[in-house]
Amino acid sequence: MPDLEYIFHPKSIAIAGASRNPPNPVNFFYLNALTQFGYEGELYLIHPKASELSGLKVYPSIMDVPGPIDHVIGGIRASLTPQLMRECVAKGVKLVQLFTAGFSETGQEKGIRLEKEIAEIARRGNVRVLGPNCMGIYCPDSKVSYVASFPKESGSVGFLCQSGGNSYDLIHLGGARGVRFSKVVSYGNASDINEAELLEYFTHDSQTKVIIGYIEGTRDGRRLTNALQKATEAKPVIMLKGGVTEAGTRVAASHTGALAGSNATWSSLFHQLGVMQVYDFQEMVDSILLFLHLKPLTGRKAGLIGIGGGCSVLATDICTREGLTIVPFPLELREKLRAIMPVELDPGTSIRNPVDVSGLGWYPDIFSRALETVASYNGIDFVLTYVTVPIGKGASVRLNGHINSLIETKKRADKPIATVLHRHDTPEAANLAFNLQNKCAQAGIPVFPSFDQAARAINRFIQCDERRR
Amino acid sequence: MPDLEYIFHPKSIAIAGASRNPPNPVNFFYLNALTQFGYEGELYLIHPKASELSGLKVYPSIMDVPGPIDHVIGGIRASLTPQLMRECVAKGVKLVQLFTAGFSETGQEKGIRLEKEIAEIARRGNVRVLGPNCMGIYCPDSKVSYVASFPKESGSVGFLCQSGGNSYDLIHLGGARGVRFSKVVSYGNASDINEAELLEYFTHDSQTKVIIGYIEGTRDGRRLTNALQKATEAKPVIMLKGGVTEAGTRVAASHTGALAGSNATWSSLFHQLGVMQVYDFQEMVDSILLFLHLKPLTGRKAGLIGIGGGCSVLATDICTREGLTIVPFPLELREKLRAIMPVELDPGTSIRNPVDVSGLGWYPDIFSRALETVASYNGIDFVLTYVTVPIGKGASVRLNGHINSLIETKKRADKPIATVLHRHDTPEAANLAFNLQNKCAQAGIPVFPSFDQAARAINRFIQCDERRR
Repeated sequence: MPDLEYIFHPKSIAIAGASRNPPNPVNFFYLNALTQFGYEGELYLIHPKASELSGLKVYPSIMDVPGPIDHVIGGIRASLTPQLMRECVAKGVKLVQLFTAGFSETGQEKGIRLEKEIAEIARRGNVRVLGPNCMGIYCPDSKVSYVASFPKESGSVGFLCQSGGNSYDLIHLGGARGVRFSKVVSYGNASDINEAELLEYFTHDSQTKVIIGYIEGTRDGRRLTNALQKATEAKPVIMLKGGVTEAGTRVAASHTGALAGSNATWSSLFHQLGVMQVYDFQEMVDSILLFLHLKPLTGRKAGLIGIGGGCSVLATDICTREGLTIVPFPLELREKLRAIMPVELDPGTSIRNPVDVSGLGWYPDIFSRALETVASYNGIDFVLTYVTVPIGKGASVRLNGHINSLIETKKRADKPIATVLHRHDTPEAANLAFNLQNKCAQAGIPVFPSFDQAARAINRFIQCDERRR
Repeated sequence: MPDLEYIFHPKSIAIAGASRNPPNPVNFFYLNALTQFGYEGELYLIHPKASELSGLKVYPSIMDVPGPIDHVIGGIRASLTPQLMRECVAKGVKLVQLFTAGFSETGQEKGIRLEKEIAEIARRGNVRVLGPNCMGIYCPDSKVSYVASFPKESGSVGFLCQSGGNSYDLIHLGGARGVRFSKVVSYGNASDINEAELLEYFTHDSQTKVIIGYIEGTRDGRRLTNALQKATEAKPVIMLKGGVTEAGTRVAASHTGALAGSNATWSSLFHQLGVMQVYDFQEMVDSILLFLHLKPLTGRKAGLIGIGGGCSVLATDICTREGLTIVPFPLELREKLRAIMPVELDPGTSIRNPVDVSGLGWYPDIFSRALETVASYNGIDFVLTYVTVPIGKGASVRLNGHINSLIETKKRADKPIATVLHRHDTPEAANLAFNLQNKCAQAGIPVFPSFDQAARAINRFIQCDERRR
């Protein structure tokens, strides 16, 4: 097991590159984030001229800091980084994380040489380097973060990400859908700590139950292959490869200097090892939710139950197109359902699969009994429920009642349950959905924004499981 | 031209089926909506026992209403509708819209017979029927609506929708993304007014620039084919067919009693006539925005410009996969861009296509000049910009500055411009995106929530145009 644990628990952090004139990215990201997360270790600022910044004492150089420094965040100009590195070696710093860009990713001789120089100083001086051209470490347990608005709570997803911006996107997107992270590392140009070493770490990290990664390329394909193999043997691994088209590969090369290799090679590697490959961050979050909350599914036969006739038609079309099977329910089951939803109460209901609970879906007791009845049927492998976030007077009460009923019923249901929570992009609906998505995640119910995303993710989830077995 | 205009401008409306014990769908939908829209005609409530409901005077029957009635909304029990219809005939009502379900869509003899009986009374009595099993009419200009939270402003999209619930979803979804409607008709079982007649109406309606439809089936394929042909000759037509799989067709039949026909027939008909076929409501809105705001595109070569390195990689991969072309920019153009974004200012920028404006994208002047430069390049057919909705302190100011710059620059840009506005589903981001989407729509810029949706819609838009020419 690689000894990277310490990089997630620095007792002291020094930031070089904060400015007296914000907005400056170093202030905006690191200073804000560490302050707002309430980082409890020693926090030092390094600035050649300032004596005080944001109420923190400032030192002219690393060497002037009185105590030891575990972790240095460098956001100074690229040409000044070798000097910073030498001071870090002299000071006995353990990890230098370089936010600074302008190295090998420029494709120019000067930047390539500079990156080599830094790596060489670090190797000789026994200092580890994260980056350059990266955002660094997010570890909620240690109150270490590079973005103030990341979730404060810890979770069980470990994330290695070659792109800082993409880590920003995925953590917020996942956060809003109820995903929480054990540790996230944005590692940029990977001049020292690279994707393989991080995979090795996450494979053994007991806090991490699902490993996800965004990778643009590798400089050590053999080590990465071994690491991926070990990782998938231990845990679900979901990968988004940046640069899967010729044009995309060209862009990746100028982004992190990645040696991308052919897409066919990557895809067949992922396929062979049972790594789930996804192509955007919505797909990534969809898959995470399934791995976090559901056991492997026994097959593709879905029982659909929700509110809305037209919606039921589209649900059936889309689920079928994406490889799931929607078989009509047998007479006996339909009779049980009809007893729960008599025609006299609502002639708009339907009981054949999909079960359209129609307006009765807003009566938690009726919905609960119908859902439990569907979940008890042995002709299906799982249940997919669906509801559109209502709008206007009473909407919140109605939807909360419905979701509470779903969560309660799920506890005693015989089958795995996932949910589609449609919404309309209005602030009101987004707000309602946000709270309920998080509530469902805590109750172990994966929530998807569309049938499209739900069905594709479920089908991919089954495929991946088939390959891993 | 069919003489349906009058159904959108009733001078008086009577509602039969409101209850003294809300929540009742008739109160919830029609009474709320007409009240909150400020419907200016006469509004009567019909109830056998109540003398007053929601502050409105109540009449025991249609016949007891003193003045004339243009439009009756019926939400009473199915078995009572023939009597209601007879009274409407006697009263000289022009249109009866039946919310009531329990007719031919049940597939049972009783319901089928009841629907025939109603249609027959209407035909003989010279009353038109909308439905049964439908939501009716939304016409913002006349302040007629069936949902209180629909947009109050009028627009140029005409929408015929066989499913009431789906119309609810599409109008809210489109509304949140800046789409406004001329007239919407939810027509349900189509016992009298059907999809073909509505298409004929929208074809000639000067207020309607784009026609969209959700159809589950037809009982008069020849008339529909003719109507579709004439419609596409006049305007863009976008269709979502409910029931395109065998399982979906079965569900559609029990939803609106639709005779769905084979999917192959529908698809080849749409293809042949140049109707754009979409498969969910997000795709529908994506396509509407393109038809509303962009002229036909000259080809598939995209100039990409936005904020974020990893995002640029994914943008390139996804756009390429969906059939767009991302060619590297020539040296001359790159030099112009480099002069606007000097490396010293931000080493993280990229200028090859995609143009990653990186942190400089938050300086409206720099972004504007870079965008104008890209848009002036003759080697591309259109520009796709992209930005992630930022979160936290100052986010709103920064994003507003960026979008204002986009809108101003668009006015003088040489090429069509569309935008991807990524967001993270947090209430804060949804709120910001909501306002800016509407602002962009007013400025004629289509906004998409993902590269996936943007690229697929643009490719489909070009294909459709190729077929219509």
